[in-house]
Amino acid sequence: MSDYSSILLENAVKQFASLPGLGRKTALRLVLHLLRRPRNEVEAFADSLTKLKADVRYCRLCHNISDSDVCPICQSTRRDRQTICVVENIQDVMSVEKTGQYNGLYHVLGGIISPMDGVGPKDIEIDSLVERIEPEHIKEVILALPTTMEGDTTNFYIYRRLMPTQVKVSQIARGMAIGNELEYTDEITLGRSILNRTEYTG
Amino acid sequence: MSDYSSILLENAVKQFASLPGLGRKTALRLVLHLLRRPRNEVEAFADSLTKLKADVRYCRLCHNISDSDVCPICQSTRRDRQTICVVENIQDVMSVEKTGQYNGLYHVLGGIISPMDGVGPKDIEIDSLVERIEPEHIKEVILALPTTMEGDTTNFYIYRRLMPTQVKVSQIARGMAIGNELEYTDEITLGRSILNRTEYTG
Repeated sequence: MSDYSSILLENAVKQFASLPGLGRKTALRLVLHLLRRPRNEVEAFADSLTKLKADVRYCRLCHNISDSDVCPICQSTRRDRQTICVVENIQDVMSVEKTGQYNGLYHVLGGIISPMDGVGPKDIEIDSLVERIEPEHIKEVILALPTTMEGDTTNFYIYRRLMPTQVKVSQIARGMAIGNELEYTDEITLGRSILNRTEYTG
Repeated sequence: MSDYSSILLENAVKQFASLPGLGRKTALRLVLHLLRRPRNEVEAFADSLTKLKADVRYCRLCHNISDSDVCPICQSTRRDRQTICVVENIQDVMSVEKTGQYNGLYHVLGGIISPMDGVGPKDIEIDSLVERIEPEHIKEVILALPTTMEGDTTNFYIYRRLMPTQVKVSQIARGMAIGNELEYTDEITLGRSILNRTEYTG
């Protein structure tokens, strides 16, 4: 006999425990919580997952997650349609949106170049980025990728691919995080922030 | 517009974030993970929840979760059917089973007496415990409730209710946890473990 007196319970726990970062104990706690909720709520929970998987799409232009063929951001007429911010994934779109400091379009790569993980330029949405520049009259591409070796590699590759289009390519600033102390900032970041110092205008 | 470019995504994230201990960020991470899984896996996930809620039952005798009217433990002929271990909830049944030190039956109260939370003796399965003693010829009831004020109150109440049946009532030992140092054991536990010392037989 298994640890569980109910196979139905065991199945549900196994499903939750298959999610990243959830162990058996947490999974059991979540399932027992759901079990105490009314039946219609549990059905709504299950429905939201099947519907998501069945009906969700990715924007034809920027590859962000979307309920329609073109996402609300790419459809918007109130955004700067000549600037594209390149990000690794859809969470990053949300992160940039939350800053309230950006009003242009996006391009979601769906990954970054990582030879160690077997991810090459053809595995992510780089071709489709290059193909957007001329038809959409893009003036600037902002690279907002992770500040890691893989991010740097991807930045460089995209830069080289974009050179023939003569679009302006920029990358998000690297330096000390706001609210940090010099003492606790790593040497590479601090060194970079000295090299890349900006004019102080008071 | 919400933070999410997809209402389907937002719904699924809200559902996960409604579970205890899961915040928005974790919920998003889990949903995006599910989104990368094949459709049949997501459907199996959703199915396991609706099936659990629709079909799960509670054992008529011990109130443990079960797929049938009487749970496998209560049905088993290989267990000591004259001893009942009283626990607060179904997780506790699993915990005791895992020790491998108990081979009797269980009785799941579904809570403990807690006036602060408005839980009285009638809100948990105490009557049904008392009613099991004579028909099932129970010889011993082991109280395995939390060692808290509420647990103690519930122990005492059950003890008083069982007195007329003349069943033997015991409670699980309290003392130092295995592997602990005296120095780091709290005074009450250490005091109790001195009072309740057992004969050393070498």
